[in-house]
Amino acid sequence: MSEWFETPEGVLDQVWSRLSRGVGDRRAPARHLTFATVSPSGWPEARTVVLRRVDRAEAVLEVFTDLASGKVASLWAAPLAGLHVWEPSPRLQIRVQAEVEILSGDAVAERWERLTPDGRTSYGCVPPTGTPIGAALAYEKTSDPTAFAVLRCRAASIDAVHLGEVHRRALYRREGGWAGEWLAP
Amino acid sequence: MSEWFETPEGVLDQVWSRLSRGVGDRRAPARHLTFATVSPSGWPEARTVVLRRVDRAEAVLEVFTDLASGKVASLWAAPLAGLHVWEPSPRLQIRVQAEVEILSGDAVAERWERLTPDGRTSYGCVPPTGTPIGAALAYEKTSDPTAFAVLRCRAASIDAVHLGEVHRRALYRREGGWAGEWLAP
Repeated sequence: MSEWFETPEGVLDQVWSRLSRGVGDRRAPARHLTFATVSPSGWPEARTVVLRRVDRAEAVLEVFTDLASGKVASLWAAPLAGLHVWEPSPRLQIRVQAEVEILSGDAVAERWERLTPDGRTSYGCVPPTGTPIGAALAYEKTSDPTAFAVLRCRAASIDAVHLGEVHRRALYRREGGWAGEWLAP
Repeated sequence: MSEWFETPEGVLDQVWSRLSRGVGDRRAPARHLTFATVSPSGWPEARTVVLRRVDRAEAVLEVFTDLASGKVASLWAAPLAGLHVWEPSPRLQIRVQAEVEILSGDAVAERWERLTPDGRTSYGCVPPTGTPIGAALAYEKTSDPTAFAVLRCRAASIDAVHLGEVHRRALYRREGGWAGEWLAP
């Protein structure tokens, strides 16, 4: 019997298992990913997002956002994201590089219908999110379906680092059919 | 009495207090930042780093790295970083955009001297970190002082979001003398 972290396949199984758990379990570390983009002026940016859907067969991860958010402006300019999560219990760092498609309007109408009233308040703001305002609470959340967007992140590569008694690092690429290779950590 | 999150100054005090705690307390959330960069080919990248020093007066944060790491290659091409931490207890997201100086060699000799033997094993690897290897453990950590680098991150702006009963977001810029302005969250 080998441990999961001793084969590239075992590490990749662990990666997808943890990501899937993030979708279903509000307390799982992968529930909240850090989502990195490049701003139109070339700055790296990172913020927390909630993982909403994972499809291992397609190697796709989905998050929701407000269409007026800074990350959408960045993704129009450069439709690339770096997704990051640290899983303390398996001591596993997961990094995903993904091409991002911005879906809104009719394409996401069904997803909008499934949101709770409370969940909908995250989308739509007057003035739009990121606008300077004179007082902290001088804004109104509008639950606006036209502000709702799904970011469909199609993984191009996955980098996994296991910080065990010894460290192991594996890299997987879509181009390579997700066959893993070990890297010096 | 107002709560800390009701004034821009209160939020900024909380930001620096949490970052400072990250340096001293291994279990503090800000001990482990997510560090975003832009790769030479334009991809956003993110990985966990350990926060080693904070200087509020200079608005500087420091982390250590291996000079052969991917993030250093990215920083040579674009010396900009996005630092991110989520503090669960105050429900505060801290985002720092910083210009990064890469210090190594004589400039960091004193810092190297203060590392423990165990701490030194993170710097220097044969083959260099990120090199494909035939087996997971086909590498050797060399504790090489010439591989040790300090990333001196000089903050240009700080974006703080407090997810309380209501949400508040404030932006601070070095150019503006760190006076905060509220943004629609």
